[in-house]
Parts: sequence; structure tokens; C-alpha cells
Amino acid sequence: MKKAGILNRHLAGALAELGHGHGVLVCDAGMPIPVGPRVVDLAFRAGVPSFAEVLDGLLDELVVEGATAAREVREANPGATALLQTRFPALELVPHEELKSLSANARLIVRTGEARPYANVLLRCGVFF
Amino acid sequence: MKKAGILNRHLAGALAELGHGHGVLVCDAGMPIPVGPRVVDLAFRAGVPSFAEVLDGLLDELVVEGATAAREVREANPGATALLQTRFPALELVPHEELKSLSANARLIVRTGEARPYANVLLRCGVFF
Amino acid sequence: MKKAGILNRHLAGALAELGHGHGVLVCDAGMPIPVGPRVVDLAFRAGVPSFAEVLDGLLDELVVEGATAAREVREANPGATALLQTRFPALELVPHEELKSLSANARLIVRTGEARPYANVLLRCGVFF
Amino acid sequence: MKKAGILNRHLAGALAELGHGHGVLVCDAGMPIPVGPRVVDLAFRAGVPSFAEVLDGLLDELVVEGATAAREVREANPGATALLQTRFPALELVPHEELKSLSANARLIVRTGEARPYANVLLRCGVFF
Amino acid sequence: MKKAGILNRHLAGALAELGHGHGVLVCDAGMPIPVGPRVVDLAFRAGVPSFAEVLDGLLDELVVEGATAAREVREANPGATALLQTRFPALELVPHEELKSLSANARLIVRTGEARPYANVLLRCGVFF
Amino acid sequence: MKKAGILNRHLAGALAELGHGHGVLVCDAGMPIPVGPRVVDLAFRAGVPSFAEVLDGLLDELVVEGATAAREVREANPGATALLQTRFPALELVPHEELKSLSANARLIVRTGEARPYANVLLRCGVFF
Amino acid sequence: MKKAGILNRHLAGALAELGHGHGVLVCDAGMPIPVGPRVVDLAFRAGVPSFAEVLDGLLDELVVEGATAAREVREANPGATALLQTRFPALELVPHEELKSLSANARLIVRTGEARPYANVLLRCGVFF
Amino acid sequence: MKKAGILNRHLAGALAELGHGHGVLVCDAGMPIPVGPRVVDLAFRAGVPSFAEVLDGLLDELVVEGATAAREVREANPGATALLQTRFPALELVPHEELKSLSANARLIVRTGEARPYANVLLRCGVFF
Amino acid sequence: MKKAGILNRHLAGALAELGHGHGVLVCDAGMPIPVGPRVVDLAFRAGVPSFAEVLDGLLDELVVEGATAAREVREANPGATALLQTRFPALELVPHEELKSLSANARLIVRTGEARPYANVLLRCGVFF
Amino acid sequence: MKKAGILNRHLAGALAELGHGHGVLVCDAGMPIPVGPRVVDLAFRAGVPSFAEVLDGLLDELVVEGATAAREVREANPGATALLQTRFPALELVPHEELKSLSANARLIVRTGEARPYANVLLRCGVFF
Repeated sequence: MKKAGILNRHLAGALAELGHGHGVLVCDAGMPIPVGPRVVDLAFRAGVPSFAEVLDGLLDELVVEGATAAREVREANPGATALLQTRFPALELVPHEELKSLSANARLIVRTGEARPYANVLLRCGVFF
Repeated sequence: MKKAGILNRHLAGALAELGHGHGVLVCDAGMPIPVGPRVVDLAFRAGVPSFAEVLDGLLDELVVEGATAAREVREANPGATALLQTRFPALELVPHEELKSLSANARLIVRTGEARPYANVLLRCGVFF
Repeated sequence: MKKAGILNRHLAGALAELGHGHGVLVCDAGMPIPVGPRVVDLAFRAGVPSFAEVLDGLLDELVVEGATAAREVREANPGATALLQTRFPALELVPHEELKSLSANARLIVRTGEARPYANVLLRCGVFF
Repeated sequence: MKKAGILNRHLAGALAELGHGHGVLVCDAGMPIPVGPRVVDLAFRAGVPSFAEVLDGLLDELVVEGATAAREVREANPGATALLQTRFPALELVPHEELKSLSANARLIVRTGEARPYANVLLRCGVFF
Repeated sequence: MKKAGILNRHLAGALAELGHGHGVLVCDAGMPIPVGPRVVDLAFRAGVPSFAEVLDGLLDELVVEGATAAREVREANPGATALLQTRFPALELVPHEELKSLSANARLIVRTGEARPYANVLLRCGVFF
Repeated sequence: MKKAGILNRHLAGALAELGHGHGVLVCDAGMPIPVGPRVVDLAFRAGVPSFAEVLDGLLDELVVEGATAAREVREANPGATALLQTRFPALELVPHEELKSLSANARLIVRTGEARPYANVLLRCGVFF
Repeated sequence: MKKAGILNRHLAGALAELGHGHGVLVCDAGMPIPVGPRVVDLAFRAGVPSFAEVLDGLLDELVVEGATAAREVREANPGATALLQTRFPALELVPHEELKSLSANARLIVRTGEARPYANVLLRCGVFF
Repeated sequence: MKKAGILNRHLAGALAELGHGHGVLVCDAGMPIPVGPRVVDLAFRAGVPSFAEVLDGLLDELVVEGATAAREVREANPGATALLQTRFPALELVPHEELKSLSANARLIVRTGEARPYANVLLRCGVFF
Repeated sequence: MKKAGILNRHLAGALAELGHGHGVLVCDAGMPIPVGPRVVDLAFRAGVPSFAEVLDGLLDELVVEGATAAREVREANPGATALLQTRFPALELVPHEELKSLSANARLIVRTGEARPYANVLLRCGVFF
Repeated sequence: MKKAGILNRHLAGALAELGHGHGVLVCDAGMPIPVGPRVVDLAFRAGVPSFAEVLDGLLDELVVEGATAAREVREANPGATALLQTRFPALELVPHEELKSLSANARLIVRTGEARPYANVLLRCGVFF
């Protein structure tokens, strides 16, 4: 088997397709996922796996040059806010509605089991060369 | 969205199909999954989600009347052994090779991210009437 | 097998996909279902299963924060009207034609065997966190 | 829409394929459905729709020249026994295990929401000419 | 097998989907069928099955509340004209070109083997409750 | 459109695949069609289209070097018997059960709407060079 | 097997679908085939089969009431010009670019192995009744 | 477009898959093609394209280390016999029935329009290193 | 097996489809590939296979009458610039953003493992007759 | 995009599925790949990518506990022999025919562009816990 990294067959394949500038939405279990983008549903039950576990797992794999979250996270979910701000010093905050419409053009949506509000981030892929 | 329970679209559908006597294998990330049974791949990274998290989540959903694990678990993985023995007082233990061949006839295989050895159990579905 | 809840494989999977704000149309057997949304066809014969049975089964499973029905139900179907008003104190009523066009953007359509007029309701999903 | 009869798109199509001698299993929600035969899953929740509702609906549509049920039904489910004996005076009774293996060769399996034991019958299609 | 009614597996399933207001085009073998609507191709050879046979078979199955044909039928095909006028006292006549564009929004197109001109009718489904 | 011949898209494609020695079963609506061979379902309603119409249509298209029917046809269906004997002077007659098992290896099964018993014939394709 | 006519399974099926007014593009191997129309690729190698062989084969099968080719054929390909003019006395000539855009709405594109320029013709189907 | 070689999309892809020892059957239009192997149907009409054209086109593309034909070709088809003997000095001849059963294990079957008997050859792929 | 040329089954098939004027994008591993065009993913790991290996392989197979690259390549990637200028004396240079939007209409995208910036070229197919 | 590792979407997904004991065949372009196992075709042209490049790339990703190659490699391909012996001190050598039959049970086959003989190795996956 693989030595390490992403063990999920669907996610591993989807990540390899990504190119520079592609959007990857990592979202909580309640996010209304639009029809269109490819979805990898990792959610099992409330909280499993968590937004933080999945985000950090993806950050080990992907070159990321930008991140956008919903402004409402700051008030509703301090934990996610702290996580996002430490991971993305230049985090962009937009209204949740705008994040949802931006997500319709994501190339990949990774759904977690997160059950705390506004734990969503739209990553913009960078490139390692 | 759902109030509770299984949030994974693939797993939720697969569980609803199960009937009395069907086998459900819950396995670690290293189990060589045979071709044939339906597979729901919840694995994300080593340990995420864990065998325990997924097993308990499934036991909340399913009527289970029997469970079979690999004898080798007792020595190799005390944690999983303790978990299995508390959950299934009448746990059946067979050689790992036999568990693998039994699993080829499972109706559903749920792959976790578990990265500790022999954390596999073949559940036999019961019926609530 | 499952202990309780939704036993239909198609519906169980479809419900797990739903997110906050997604629309779910529960409709009678005569509703002209638009092409686009996912459809779970539970209808068997006239009246089986009924609108009430299916609606209540779904309300046990889903967080619902809004409901819209056709104004014409009040006159044409007192039974359904009473059911809807007790289940949804803040029920919104719109012309049947508008309900039909709103339904084209539903994420899921659940068709019942109901054979009494205007027994349709467009549920708006809430979120449990 | 249709004037009457079977409203379910999957079932309506499946019934039209049946020929003389084909087997149709009508089963409760707990029956372990084998891989192979075509399945129409009408089950919604425990008891909905019932075995009786679905059986009678099918008997309105199909020419049936034989029926086989599990011997164990007599003790475990008087209601289903009475229903089966009135519908099929020449009802054949076999061990439940044999009914399960016979069902593997059914051409169609119709799953109901029935949640009372041994409410299963394997119908043998007749022909109207 | 079925006691009576529609024996075609594709058509039987398609009819069960229809709802109030859906369009069903019954057409001759020469009609240029648009891409989009579901098509059930019953045509075998010129004249087999005929427009009349198929139309009457469908009228036994469906609630129909309106019908539209091509004005040109009156001159080109007296037989079809007579059939349509007896079946649909309130038959609507439009230019053939308009019938073709209306047919692009039909939910179902049933192609017959009819080989006499303008033997086409766009039925509007009614509802039995 | 085509000038003449087979107008059914499914059948026209299937006939073109046939090679020397391939079996083509033309059957009535009640024949229990085995899983495996390709099926073109021309059946519409009882008697439409008839066995004779379809058989003669196929004989215009195909090189046929042999034909096998069920012995029981002679008693049960004089009309079909006469048709078969005129079309195939060297008609082979076997028990109906044998015809059914032979049909499992047919390359193509063409189902008609015929509703008179034993109107089935297994044609063996010839070759025109 | 078939007595005569089109032996290609894909083409035989596609031709049977055609209706009055549908476009059929017969083209050389270099034509940039647009995404959308159904394509039957008969091309094998340069020149095999030729434009003339395929065109004449199709004209034996189809009712054709119109034909459009690229004006540039007259200068670039006398052979094809002569063929087209004898087959279609009322041949319409348009710029190659216009032929390409017209072809995007063809119902069927038949690609030959022709390797001489502008050997393309867009046929408009007629109807035999 | 391609400079030369195989222009058929299906065939070009299929040839690239071939490995050392794989069987490729090149056959006439009447050969009863078994279910199983991949089929590329180049046949258009009787004789188009010919067995010779296709065989020589394939021999330009493929490393071939063996060839088997039906013994009956010598008497029934001198032309094909001469072609095969010049192309394959070590041509193996077996009864036609044996060639048919060998062909069931071919990796690829290329159907031509050839309409002269026994114009079939089973090529065994070689390897260029 | 094939004697030479493209050994990849997906690419070999895709190249055969190309026509005069079709676009083929050969790109590095970081290019954000748009949804729509057919993609053949040859990338294995960073640098394997290289842009140069794949480009030259394709130029052996395809007639190319034009090539467009990103202006930024000149500064960021002298190696690729030199390669492109020798292969395409009339190389067109446009802003990278424009190349990306042009690529959305390519008929085929071939992804390499190239890991040096702006190693992308949009080829315009020519025709060999 | 990914930071490193396998960039091929098909291969990345396939590797994530592997479990302890699964076989992975890495082969040259001439290996006759059996029907059954999943195939990722990385081959581009003779030698691209090479057996060594792909093998080493896979060894970076996979836990491997065993390797089997064809005995004939020692004489026919010293380069591959040296590579295999350095990578797998306990390399098992079997007749090429046996390697081919073993490969039919591989879970994954990775085809390279290697064009030197017997450059094939069947890896047996290990597990990292």
C-alpha cells in the first residue's frame, strides 16, 4: 500500500488533476454543495473527520497560494477562525453568500464531517515550479 | 440537511440496502480489499478516521447479530482487541487469512484510515423485527 | 440491517448529500417533475405511500427551516392543508405555477403515491449547527 | 399521467419485461437481497409501504400461477400467513433458507417497507394466453 | 407476466413518470425527433405499428387533457384527421413547424411505424385527481 | 430518413452485427427472456405488433438457413404453425423447454406483442457469400 | 446475417433514427468534426473507404431532398465536384466555413477515409411518404 | 490531423493496447463474432472495405509473428488464399470451426466489409524489442 | 503490438479523431486544465515525461500548421522557448491568460510531467491533403 | 496543484486503493496485459517513460515487501536485471510464462513505454503498520 499521504482513492485521484489557479473548497457537512464541481465526500458523522484534520492533510499535499473564507466565521466559530488565520496569514474574508457562489467554480469540493458553522475555505492552488 | 447519523452519501445509501445476514467488513487502511463487494472508502490519512470512530458510528445505525475478527489482533493490537471485546462479547476469532476470504462475500466494505494492525471486523447484520 | 429511519437505498443516500438551504420537494404522483433535480420515486399506486407518511418520515430525518406550498391547496385539499399548517406554522403559500418553477431548482424531489390534489411542499433545509 | 395501476417508473418498466415462469420476489425490508436479480426498492420506513399493499398491487397487474413462502411464516407472522393463504390457495411452503436460494434466480425483487418477519413470497408468473 | 396494458419495458417505465401537464408526442416514422426528450422507438417497418394502434393504446393508459396536431394533416392525411378529431373533440391545430418546436419540450416521444404524412399528435397529460 | 426496411434504431443496429450461425429468437410477449442475449423489445400491447408481421419483416432483411420452434405450437397455435411451415419447409421442432434453453445462446432476441401461445422461432443466420 | 445494405452496426442504427429534415454530413478524414452530433467513424486509412463509396452506399439507403457542399470543392477537387453534381443536380454551394457551422447541427456525421480536399456534403433527409 | 496510418479512432486506440502474443482477428462481414473480445466494426457495405485493404493496413502498423486461417479458404476463396500465403509464408491452416473457437480469445476483432468466404485470419502479435 | 509511434491507448485514439483546424494543447503538469476538452494525462512525476519528449512525439504523428505559446515563456523558461522557436518558426505568442482561454476550445489536451514554467503550446492541426 | 509525488490522476487514485498483499505489475510496452486488472497506461512512445523512471517513482510511493520478475531478463536485459537486483535484494525469478499468469491476479498494472525485453516486475505490496 501507499507509504503515507492521502489514502482515499477518490481524493488521491482528484488532487493529482489540480493545476495552478484551480479552486478547492474544503467545507463542513452543512455546506450546500452546488451541482457541477467534483465532490469527494469524506464526511462520516458529525465531527468526523474534522475540518482541521482534513485541511491540514490537504495542506501537506497541495501548493496553495490563496485562501478565502466567510467573514461570518470570525463571530460564529473562533476555533475555525484561529485555524484559518494561522494557516493563511493573507486569508481573504468575503460574505458567506459570495463564498458559496465562488465555490460553484471550484474544481474540487472536499466535504468533511465538521459540524461547527462556517468551517469552509476555498483554497487557490499554486504551482511548485 | 440530516439531523444526525451517517452524513456520507455513499455509506448512507449502502447501509439502507443491508438485509438480515449480510456481512459488513469494517477495515483498516491496509486491508487488501477484494474485487466484488461494494466499497465505501472513508479513509483520509493514516488514523483518520479511526477504526473505533467508524465502528461505533456504524453500531449506532445497524442491527448486528455477530462479529468476526482476526485472531492475530490480540497480540498485535491490544487497543482494537479491547474495543472489539467490549462491543461484541461473543466475538468470533479466526485466522486473518480466513477473515480475508470471508470478506470476499461481504455485501459492504467500509474502509477507515486506521493504521494499526488487524483492526478489521466482519459484522453480521441482524434484523429489528 | 438498519435499526430504523429511511430504509430506501436511493433516498438514504440522497438525504445525506443535502446541505443548508437546499430544496427538497415532496410531491404527489401527478406533479410534473422537471428534468434536472435528482428524483427518488417512492410512488407505488394511487395513495401508496401517502403524502403524510412520507412527509413525516422526512421530517424525522431532516432539519427544515422553511416550507412552501401551493395556495390552491387550501381549497382543493383540506387534509393536506391541515397537515402542512400543523407541521409548518410559517408555511409560505405561492401560486402552484410558482411552486413548479421553484421546484426546478430543488436538489431532491421525493415522489409519493399521493392522489389528492396539490399535496406538494418544497422544504428548505436547515442545518443542525 | 397514468390513469391507474403502477405509478413507480422502475417497477412499471420491470413488470413489462416479465415472461411466463419468471420469478418475482416480494419481500420485507429485512430480506438479504442477493446480488444479481433486478431490484425495485419501494421501502420507505418500517411498515411503509406494507407487504400486503404491495402484494395486492402486484396481483392486480400480474398473471401469477404459483407462489412460494417460508414455512416459518406460519408461526412468526399470522397476519402474513392469512394474507398469503387467501391469495394463494396452493401456496407452497419451504424452509426460509431454501426461499432465499430460490430468490437468487428471481427475475425481479420488489422490496417493501414491511417490518414483520417472513413476509416474503416468490411469485411464479403465468401468461394470459 | 402482465395481465394487459403496455408490454413494452421502455414505454411502461416512461409512462409511469408522466405528470400533469407533461407533453407526449406520438409521431410517424418520418418525424425529425429533436435531441433532448426521452424517445421510445416502437417503429418496426413502414406502417408497423400504426399511428392509430399506438395512439389508442396510449389513450387507454393516460389521462389526456389536450392534444395538438399539424394543420397540414387535414389535407394530407384524411384518415389521421378523422382519427384525431374523433379522439380529441377540442383538437388544436398549429403549423407543422410549430408542432415540431413544441415537441422539443415534450417529456416523452413515442415513435410509431406510421408511414402516412402528418400522423403526429402532441398530447398534454391530465391528472386523475 | 431511410427509404425502407427496418426503421427501429435498436433493431437496425443489432441486425447489422449478425454473422453466419448466429441465433435470432423471434418470440411472443410471454416468452421468459433469459438474461444475456441482446433484446430488442418491439412489443407494444397484446397482438401489436404480431409475430407474423415481425417475422416477415426480419425475413426480408436476414439470410436464414435454419429455424427451430416448439413442438407444442402445432396443437396450441395452428395459425403460427401454418406460418412457420410455409416460411421454413425444413422447420425443426423441439420441446418448448429445449427451445428456451437454446434461446439462452441466441445473439439477438426480438420480442413481439404476439399474444397467442408458442409463437416463437429461433432462426439460424446464413450468409450471402 | 443481413442480406445486403449497411453492414456497420453503428451506422445501421444511426440511419434508422433519421427523420425528415435531419442533416447527415458525409465527410473526408480531415474535416474538423464538431462536438455534439453523433459520429460514425468509418475511416480506416487514407482513401479507405472513399467518399464516393460511402456517399453512394448512403444514397441507396436514404431519402435525400437536398445537399450542400463547399464552394471550394470546384477548384480543389474536380473528382468530388463531378460526383456531387451528378448525384445532386440542385447541389447548393456555400463557403467551407459555412458548411462547417451548418454541420454542427447535423444529426449524424459519417467520416470516410477520403484524403482529397473538400470531399464533404451535408445531406438533408427527405421522407418516403 | 494525423500525418498517416490508422485514421479510425476506435482502431487506433485498440492497436496501441496490443502486446506480445495477443490475437487480432481480421474477418469478413459474415464471421459470427463471439461476445467478449473488443470489436472494431469497419464494415460499411459488401466488399467495402475489403479484407485485403484492411489486412495490409494493419500489417503496416503491427508486428506480427504468426497467422492462422481456415483450411476451407483454399478451395472457397483463391484470392484470399493467395493474399494470405504471400503475406504469411508460415501461415497455419486449421478447420474453420477451430478458427472460430480460437477467435473467442482474440484481444481484438477487426470486422471488414469483405463478402467472399473464409476471408479471416487470426494474427498473433509479435514485439519490436 | 504496434511497430512504432504512439503506444498510449488513450492518446492513439484521440489523435485519430483530429481534423483540420482542431486545437491540441500540450501542457506542463501545472496548467489548470479546463473542464470540456478531452484530456490524455501522460504525467507521471515532476519532469516525467518531459514537455520536449511529448511535443516531439506528437510532431512525428500530427500535421501542424500553427502554434501558440505564452509570451511569459521567453523570460521564465529559455529551454522551452528555444525548443518552441526551433519547432515553430512562426510561433505566435500571447499572454498566458489568453492561452488558457484559447485552450478551453482545444479538441485535445495532452498533459505532460513537465515541471518548468510556461511549457505549454496550443498546436493547430493541419491536413495532409 | 500537488507539491510532489504522482501527478497522474489515474495512477494516484489506483495507488491509494492498494492494500497489504496486493500485486502491482510494472511492465514494458510489449507485455500482453490480461483482461481483468485495472490498467494505468503511462506509455507514450518507445522508451518514454522508461521502466526505471516508473519503477523508482512507484517505490517512492509504495510499501513493497516482495518482487517477482522473469528469469529470462538476466540474459536478455542486463540493464533491467541490474536495476531489479539493486532495488530488490530478495528478487524472485520465475519463467516469463508464469509471471504472465501471476499478473492476471494483480490489482493494478502500470504500463511504461519501456522497449527493452522482460522489463517487468510484479511487486507485492507491504503495509506501513
